[in-house]
Amino acid sequence: MNNNQLLELLQTMTLEEKFGQLTQITGELYVGKVDSEMVETGPEYASHVLGDGTLYTIGSVIGASSAKFTNLIQSEYLKRSRLKIPLLFMHDAIHGYKTIFPIPLGLSCTWDEEVLETVAAVTASELRATGIHVNFSPMVDLVRDPRWGRVMESFGEDHLLSGNLGRAMIKGYQKIQEGRISEAGVAACLKHFAAYGAGIGGKDYNTVDMSLREFFDFYGKPYEIALKERPKFVMSSFNTFNGTPVTASKHMMKDVLRDRYGFDELVISDWGAVAELQKHRVAENGREAAELAMNAGIDIEMVSTLYLEHFETIVAQQPALLEDINAAVMKVLQLKNELGLFENPYTNEEAEPAILMNADFLAAAEDAARRSCVLLKNDNDLLPLRGEHRHIVLVGPFAGTKELLGNWACKGSFDDVVTLADGLKQADASLAVDVYETLADCPADVLKRSDYIIAAIGEHWGLSGEGHSSVKLELEESQRQLVKAIKATGKPYACVCFSGRPLALQDIADDMPALLWCWYPGTRAGAAVASLLTGQATPSGKLTMSFPRYSAQTPIYYNEYSSGRPANASSYSSRYQDCEIGPLFPFGHGLTYAGATYSDFAISSTDITADQPVSVSYTIDNPSDYAYSEIAILYIEDAVSRSVRPMREMKAYQVVQVPARGSVRVTMSVTLEDLKYLDAELQRTVERGAFRIYVNDTAQPVFTITY
Amino acid sequence: MNNNQLLELLQTMTLEEKFGQLTQITGELYVGKVDSEMVETGPEYASHVLGDGTLYTIGSVIGASSAKFTNLIQSEYLKRSRLKIPLLFMHDAIHGYKTIFPIPLGLSCTWDEEVLETVAAVTASELRATGIHVNFSPMVDLVRDPRWGRVMESFGEDHLLSGNLGRAMIKGYQKIQEGRISEAGVAACLKHFAAYGAGIGGKDYNTVDMSLREFFDFYGKPYEIALKERPKFVMSSFNTFNGTPVTASKHMMKDVLRDRYGFDELVISDWGAVAELQKHRVAENGREAAELAMNAGIDIEMVSTLYLEHFETIVAQQPALLEDINAAVMKVLQLKNELGLFENPYTNEEAEPAILMNADFLAAAEDAARRSCVLLKNDNDLLPLRGEHRHIVLVGPFAGTKELLGNWACKGSFDDVVTLADGLKQADASLAVDVYETLADCPADVLKRSDYIIAAIGEHWGLSGEGHSSVKLELEESQRQLVKAIKATGKPYACVCFSGRPLALQDIADDMPALLWCWYPGTRAGAAVASLLTGQATPSGKLTMSFPRYSAQTPIYYNEYSSGRPANASSYSSRYQDCEIGPLFPFGHGLTYAGATYSDFAISSTDITADQPVSVSYTIDNPSDYAYSEIAILYIEDAVSRSVRPMREMKAYQVVQVPARGSVRVTMSVTLEDLKYLDAELQRTVERGAFRIYVNDTAQPVFTITY
Repeated sequence: MNNNQLLELLQTMTLEEKFGQLTQITGELYVGKVDSEMVETGPEYASHVLGDGTLYTIGSVIGASSAKFTNLIQSEYLKRSRLKIPLLFMHDAIHGYKTIFPIPLGLSCTWDEEVLETVAAVTASELRATGIHVNFSPMVDLVRDPRWGRVMESFGEDHLLSGNLGRAMIKGYQKIQEGRISEAGVAACLKHFAAYGAGIGGKDYNTVDMSLREFFDFYGKPYEIALKERPKFVMSSFNTFNGTPVTASKHMMKDVLRDRYGFDELVISDWGAVAELQKHRVAENGREAAELAMNAGIDIEMVSTLYLEHFETIVAQQPALLEDINAAVMKVLQLKNELGLFENPYTNEEAEPAILMNADFLAAAEDAARRSCVLLKNDNDLLPLRGEHRHIVLVGPFAGTKELLGNWACKGSFDDVVTLADGLKQADASLAVDVYETLADCPADVLKRSDYIIAAIGEHWGLSGEGHSSVKLELEESQRQLVKAIKATGKPYACVCFSGRPLALQDIADDMPALLWCWYPGTRAGAAVASLLTGQATPSGKLTMSFPRYSAQTPIYYNEYSSGRPANASSYSSRYQDCEIGPLFPFGHGLTYAGATYSDFAISSTDITADQPVSVSYTIDNPSDYAYSEIAILYIEDAVSRSVRPMREMKAYQVVQVPARGSVRVTMSVTLEDLKYLDAELQRTVERGAFRIYVNDTAQPVFTITY
Repeated sequence: MNNNQLLELLQTMTLEEKFGQLTQITGELYVGKVDSEMVETGPEYASHVLGDGTLYTIGSVIGASSAKFTNLIQSEYLKRSRLKIPLLFMHDAIHGYKTIFPIPLGLSCTWDEEVLETVAAVTASELRATGIHVNFSPMVDLVRDPRWGRVMESFGEDHLLSGNLGRAMIKGYQKIQEGRISEAGVAACLKHFAAYGAGIGGKDYNTVDMSLREFFDFYGKPYEIALKERPKFVMSSFNTFNGTPVTASKHMMKDVLRDRYGFDELVISDWGAVAELQKHRVAENGREAAELAMNAGIDIEMVSTLYLEHFETIVAQQPALLEDINAAVMKVLQLKNELGLFENPYTNEEAEPAILMNADFLAAAEDAARRSCVLLKNDNDLLPLRGEHRHIVLVGPFAGTKELLGNWACKGSFDDVVTLADGLKQADASLAVDVYETLADCPADVLKRSDYIIAAIGEHWGLSGEGHSSVKLELEESQRQLVKAIKATGKPYACVCFSGRPLALQDIADDMPALLWCWYPGTRAGAAVASLLTGQATPSGKLTMSFPRYSAQTPIYYNEYSSGRPANASSYSSRYQDCEIGPLFPFGHGLTYAGATYSDFAISSTDITADQPVSVSYTIDNPSDYAYSEIAILYIEDAVSRSVRPMREMKAYQVVQVPARGSVRVTMSVTLEDLKYLDAELQRTVERGAFRIYVNDTAQPVFTITY
């Protein structure tokens, strides 16, 4: 259809039909009870009774999947719908749909936009093949607190990196060609606007309170950056922001999202969030909740149906709302048209099996998994396994498990997962790998003849993810005992850790001379990790979140503001007295097997002006046989400014392909714009003076530049 | 002198002499090396060389004590000072000077302004007797995070209570009579302005960031309330507030403190804080630091001497500053005059000994200590000791120690402290009390014949206080083992805990059937606690800070905002999944031996208007022989409002004298003003609708009122 036809369609719609388009429900009402594998249900909200007429005005369905099932819902819907506007199907494919990639926090440790774009592109292909048009991803909520379970869905603690990676995923999902979402693309939904990751104490759904300065310079930045990729949707967040639930906040949704950040597409609430304004106690009843959300500019209500229940009263009292509502409905129609649904609302069921989890997708998943692992420790080059290590004891709760997908793994199946045990055996047929859940299970003779032990430990995937905030970030006691028991054998050993969040390892770190952090790697978990353990590839990821030493050393993040009493050995400095200063493993940390060195630092000029950025370049020399991706990071420290600035601010980074036994020159630039920040009056400013430049983990500045 | 004479004096002063009056240093420069008992030194700042002329322009000295020594400094100073303006002596007597009272957090658990006023009055008498004119107390910084070591100096997590108790202390310190500080009074310094207790993660000196709404409605309130008592000084805080160090913040010091809160007296920096603006990196050098602080309105620089070093340049560039400077100097002169120093700058050395730690003061200290203890658990009425409990084993690291003063105990001496062991023996001569540091020290026969065990445990006083933030709030392992070993004896037992902060006791609480929380009680510690253990008096304190279950369940406080997904059994609610909901012991919790009941609830009206407050009254029946002070607390819950409100807000409380075997009627009022809050636009507002009223720990509202 063309735009005029869509406008004509809009004009034929009743007000109820319009609000139907602005409502999203789960799919079971259209087809009766269904296999729970195929549909998510929302029991707490589905108890409402949508009259039959109303049911067939609905605009979109959440959580239904498979081509067969979405087609079934679509056909049942279209059969009875007056205007026969096809349903949009939306889903939460957070790190893959059927082919499961590492959790987003793991993906972020690649720092590589190409990887993230590929992940999203594969996911979009699978989603479209199964009849889904919109994906509730990426999440770019800035996080500084590993107690929050949703850190697994995040890209970590830096706003620039989070924004860029989110942007890459949007690009990968939407696959815009000639201005339209391509056939294998889906609309992306950027979430959760805004500052959802800043809940007090890392408790999910908790209050958020901060200065606007902190918001615009840090928590808001990832959204601002990612929005440049023009996602079709933004999801509002559950939290309050400075006293107002975001779902009811005109300030956040209009002044900030629309006016300041220029977002012009559709805003959808989070699951049940419009109804939950009553639990927030800002709405006395459903009508007030709907009214608040409508006025804030929430276009589509997810799962609860208060818009449909109360629109007549609300619009009668506030006819001016109609303009917004028509505009929102028009955007829904335009999106459906852009996706070609008016021409063909169905999905090719026969094509689906060949697309899902095909070899290319699995290879991409394995590559992403390999790249997302971070080598945190490697004393005495204990990793990779060497020629003399042929009898391996692989032990621990994660040694043989297929539960390596991580939380929110969508339609990923444990059956498809490569275990670490299988990965090791497949990686090197010459390895004898004996697998046990505990060391006590390992017969003495097996242990005796083994020449290397791998501990496969971590935190169960169900302990991170939405709603799963934790106060205990330590490894559980049985695993700590396992590590100590392995150490006591005197054999060489390494620890491989799976987790949805950074853990607090201070009390056990000394017992882990080699530690490979694998997050949750997804379908190809074991294959990817084994390729690193056996030295077929080198680990190359770097942390995007700081690892606290203890659970209560949180929040923790690299870009803390400086204090008047910086942390030092004194009793009167800004630190915890019963805990060493700083994280156990900092943001940006990650070892390789390559032993590359940095040298020949050069700078284009030590003066920076508006017209003249500064370029820092240096040579990375790789003496090893590993070709790999090195992550080069550039930080600045503003020597003096009127507002207090972070001790380090990452201003540039690059993922650099380093050839085996070769070298590469890396160049990173800083512009004057990069040095600006919001002052106390919320004006973007930069003051004349010195800025120190640091590269990766250098303690001393490599250059000082002057503006 | 009269004001005209002071003005004349001001006019004779050189600019250097004026800045001298606005500088505070430690006292050793006047008398050479001295006994460290008598003076605090500031090694990191004292290295500057104040020329002899400059040294004798200084206005005040910090940390010198004893009448003899202050007199010595004063006389040395006056001998060589051109204008012979006497020095002011200032000190940190946080919870007593020589007679040590409970730590402020303990004192706050009395909820009793009379107690706090008495504590301050006694402290002032001792200070004046020793030649000190200004006390750096009270601290009313709102705290929600027990990781912060300075919680020991605070009045807890409620802004109303903190403000009122601070106000009572100011009254007690200043003893204003006929508009002047009386002879036994000292000037109070309210601190630390502002929001010092909100450092991220509970790390001392750390960044503070919050919405202004959060500040004005919560963190700012205690200052606002306490300032009504007109303290002579306010101390600026170390922290940044929304990006600007408070010591350099015009917004905080002028717009908020002066203009909004109406403070018109002297502002003094914290220790070295002007110089530390360089460490904050907002000042490039000492001159800039001084300039920023002067412009922000910091009248007096503490310990660093940048004002004196750079005033010429600064005033030459900004002559307009002179007006503020003259006004500040005039206030210094007026205060010295108000204190009578021009007439008599010296202190009566002979009178001092009879005043310090006299019997009345010690009695007041014992009373305050008794009232500050909180009975957290008392299963099966294990406390107090009964007639059949005659052979007591008192065991643990706190059983025989004299170190019960708490941090920042000024000139309190351990020698003067009553131990718990001595307290028990003195309280009841019929008790056989055997005292051991560990249970292993206790001979088997002694243990066998004992009929009651008291565990004296806690956190060493040196682990809380300034600079002593902690990530581990659990009892140390040896003490946990002690408790379990005592339990294993099968004897009746109780735990008596000393600590400068709430500890995290979830994993040991079930092993503590009776738990008396004593904070650090001060000089009369053992006597006070023993009177409660033996039942001579009933514990009556109530918590002013929530106790977390685990170290990482922080921050924690009763007046959390409601969430759209309130904490419940669900995986998708605002809670930690590995920790029960809420604190182990909540704000307001505290048991007694009396078993009083509340009944006959009545309300003056269920409608509230601007002209008609609502009064809630009820009867407290006391069936016991204990006359004691019951703490009655009234909370409201705003049923619905446009901004999210806390789940509970304390709006009134009363300390009620309850007679033995009698009853008393308590009445508490709520005005419409009490129901107002700052909305998103920072306007004070109250909306029509229902407000639910709760009393103490009632789970259900006792009344619902309507506006």
